[in-house]
Amino acid sequence: MTTPEHKTMPTHPRHLSSVTAWDMETDVVVAGFGGAGACAAIEAHDNGAAVMIFELASDSGGSTKLSSAEIYMGAGTRVQQACGIEDSVEDMFRFLMASNGPIADEAKVRAYCEGSVEHFDWLTKTLGVPYKDSVYPHRAIMALTDDCLLYTGSEKAWPFAQTAQPAPRGHNLQVEGDNGGALFAKILKENVEKRGIGVHFEARALTLITDDEGAVHGLVVRIDQQERLVRARRGVVLCCGGFVMNESMLRKHAPMLLGATQPIGNPGDTGSGILMGQGAGGSAINMHEGFVSVPYYPPASLTNGIFVNAQGQRFINEDCYHGRVGYYCLQQPGQRVFLVASASDFGDYPQGSYLNAQFAGTAEESVAELENELQLPAGSLQQTVAYYNAHATQAEDPLFHKSPEWLKPLELPLAAVDCSPGRGAFYPFFTLGGLDTRVSGEVLTPEGEVIRGLYAAGRTACGVPRTAAGYCSGISVGDASFSGRQAGRSAATRD
Amino acid sequence: MTTPEHKTMPTHPRHLSSVTAWDMETDVVVAGFGGAGACAAIEAHDNGAAVMIFELASDSGGSTKLSSAEIYMGAGTRVQQACGIEDSVEDMFRFLMASNGPIADEAKVRAYCEGSVEHFDWLTKTLGVPYKDSVYPHRAIMALTDDCLLYTGSEKAWPFAQTAQPAPRGHNLQVEGDNGGALFAKILKENVEKRGIGVHFEARALTLITDDEGAVHGLVVRIDQQERLVRARRGVVLCCGGFVMNESMLRKHAPMLLGATQPIGNPGDTGSGILMGQGAGGSAINMHEGFVSVPYYPPASLTNGIFVNAQGQRFINEDCYHGRVGYYCLQQPGQRVFLVASASDFGDYPQGSYLNAQFAGTAEESVAELENELQLPAGSLQQTVAYYNAHATQAEDPLFHKSPEWLKPLELPLAAVDCSPGRGAFYPFFTLGGLDTRVSGEVLTPEGEVIRGLYAAGRTACGVPRTAAGYCSGISVGDASFSGRQAGRSAATRD
Repeated sequence: MTTPEHKTMPTHPRHLSSVTAWDMETDVVVAGFGGAGACAAIEAHDNGAAVMIFELASDSGGSTKLSSAEIYMGAGTRVQQACGIEDSVEDMFRFLMASNGPIADEAKVRAYCEGSVEHFDWLTKTLGVPYKDSVYPHRAIMALTDDCLLYTGSEKAWPFAQTAQPAPRGHNLQVEGDNGGALFAKILKENVEKRGIGVHFEARALTLITDDEGAVHGLVVRIDQQERLVRARRGVVLCCGGFVMNESMLRKHAPMLLGATQPIGNPGDTGSGILMGQGAGGSAINMHEGFVSVPYYPPASLTNGIFVNAQGQRFINEDCYHGRVGYYCLQQPGQRVFLVASASDFGDYPQGSYLNAQFAGTAEESVAELENELQLPAGSLQQTVAYYNAHATQAEDPLFHKSPEWLKPLELPLAAVDCSPGRGAFYPFFTLGGLDTRVSGEVLTPEGEVIRGLYAAGRTACGVPRTAAGYCSGISVGDASFSGRQAGRSAATRD
Repeated sequence: MTTPEHKTMPTHPRHLSSVTAWDMETDVVVAGFGGAGACAAIEAHDNGAAVMIFELASDSGGSTKLSSAEIYMGAGTRVQQACGIEDSVEDMFRFLMASNGPIADEAKVRAYCEGSVEHFDWLTKTLGVPYKDSVYPHRAIMALTDDCLLYTGSEKAWPFAQTAQPAPRGHNLQVEGDNGGALFAKILKENVEKRGIGVHFEARALTLITDDEGAVHGLVVRIDQQERLVRARRGVVLCCGGFVMNESMLRKHAPMLLGATQPIGNPGDTGSGILMGQGAGGSAINMHEGFVSVPYYPPASLTNGIFVNAQGQRFINEDCYHGRVGYYCLQQPGQRVFLVASASDFGDYPQGSYLNAQFAGTAEESVAELENELQLPAGSLQQTVAYYNAHATQAEDPLFHKSPEWLKPLELPLAAVDCSPGRGAFYPFFTLGGLDTRVSGEVLTPEGEVIRGLYAAGRTACGVPRTAAGYCSGISVGDASFSGRQAGRSAATRD
């Protein structure tokens, strides 16, 4: 008996007893051929398993391919050492724990940091991912040269710099421009192909196949309008991305993200992997959180500016990561946010900027002009600027501890752009909630039991990155590739 | 075949095919005899169903009994009308939608407001709950007299007063002191008893009984160390409270609440109802949110004070609800929060106050003294107080729009108490996440399908109250009693 496809929903696993014959059999089934799925498949294969990948799209890459594919690694990678960057497992660990705050998963962060150098070596030596032994020294969202190392989080910013020795850990591939994702996806695909791993494109994973005890035995996929029952002798690894393209799930779980403007991901990020996992008894956690950003640099000089809210008050040290700033922008009472800076610090804004915020006011002769134009409470912005300037002159920021590197008095003429959520500024976002997993990738029930035969990785799982407030670029592709490997290996070597 | 009890976990539903004989049979099984469960049972009975209640504790009442049992009702209740209070469904609706923000459930809020007068009449006429036709006119967390109506939310505060006509909607039972919960629980129990509804105390609900299609047919309970299989011909209503007493679930889902100090609830609030629902395919939503409070009034005069953060900045209008203030306290960067007020406004603090915060500094001759004692950035508090006072003199608060009623300049001597989370101040909390349900109480899967035969109410469900930032006292007991009735009626009348 097979249920008609139109009735199959991800949360309704097919019962093993309904399977009269398998259409395909292998050891490890990987659902999704993005960054996580590719790494899961490669690692499963290299650990002795027969592997099949089923991918909804017509080609591989997923959201990883659409990204810069910077990877957050540290603790002394080859590039860090070659560039004379000091880093350690402990500093990386302390930074990721502090920046993710109380929702950090200590075991995952620990494994990620302790495994980082090995992961770098695997990417370079096993897969052949090229990284130049060089530093991209600018404050930037991504490197547009072929240089490698850049700061991609809030490592140098308060309060994190006080907790852990900062180091640049964003590893940009050796390719000109923002083309890391395409190159990384190409290398992953070549590695899958040369291993002879079976790949089915345009194959939609419909639901899991489970037994009376809840153990997972396979996957129902649809290929050429037909259901195929695929047996996974050792395990199914769900690598189907997050749910940023599923508006109903966003509304239900992560309404905070609806204040942002631009979903980042591929059309397959519909949450289907999360739903399949839930249907098999898995627990979804951290579903309210996501990455969100207000990408106000480049130009880096805007870091000399200040963000103010509807009260004309600052609320953040402006030298921290754009995602952290974006997170706090969404929390401001009244939801009005302006970036105020000396006109000279706008450089050639908006050219070369991602922000897309409109100019909302200028101050030629006094801050009061700008305050008035922005309809801020009388005196509020003047007071904020006076206090800021008096201390910036001393290279101090007693309120938010912005680094002296970015402290200089705001000088007339000033200008302000309107970064209020929903008023034109670019707020990209994606989800950070997903299936609760062990470091091994094993999917857990709400009571913390392992679901036998079921694994998840990448944004289908809830991994190392847990909040925009502590995000750093490269941590999602880093987590996807790292967690994909863990899951692939666990499935392949399951006893 | 019955699985040994020690192996039974809430998330492992028992399969119907394993049931060889039922130990008990009824139409509607209610798990939990708190406020929600009692109302579910009464309403199910009054709609023609045979009902059984299974309660873990040795008596009824649950967390409702431990509360003030204020109930949030409006739109023109008898008491409101008698006291000349104007209110409407639309004002109540607009307030609850605005205060709950983007995570509000519009259908639930709509039903709650449209049904509010009828719910009041049911409580008074059907159950016999006494409310005096009087107003308790003070700004307070609860009424300590037998008067009825009080403001228990942020209705009169910015920005809500701009959105909806304020009205007092907290209905305090006609009983002296904070004894509403005991009286309400007594009345509920008497109503259950006089209907002849079967009640089993010291009966632990273990897990649900489901069939191949996922429909719910009964409940496994443990009574006198023995498992009993209870058939529910029409439905099981889960009214087992929230998960505030389950530290592992708090850590996994709601780490924000770990910044608070005192769980509010009864020992049975372990999340077992949520877990049972999840085991049967139900979706848990809003699991990160909770009620949290910093109960700084009474004395109401402290509303004349200001809350400042580690930057010496205000962040809230101090005339809003203590739960909303508590929520924002937990969000402040640096997690340092002080309540600064004229010494005279402290009255006889700490006597009669719930806050328990320690005095952290005083200013006899200048604000600078206090700023220094609190180790706030030099000039920051002075600037904040100067700006506040200059406008308070004009009965204005251009930053946060505190009502003129509470605006008077801060006058020396000043004192400050330390409300920083984790430094002694009382931060009570409970959870607001639970099973996703329809207005009817039907439990939904992650894809929004109804699970046949399964209902949830009270804090086992995710109901009207969704965030401390928009909370109002009486909304949880209000939601428990209202949603309990909906679920009881739905189960009883299921086709």
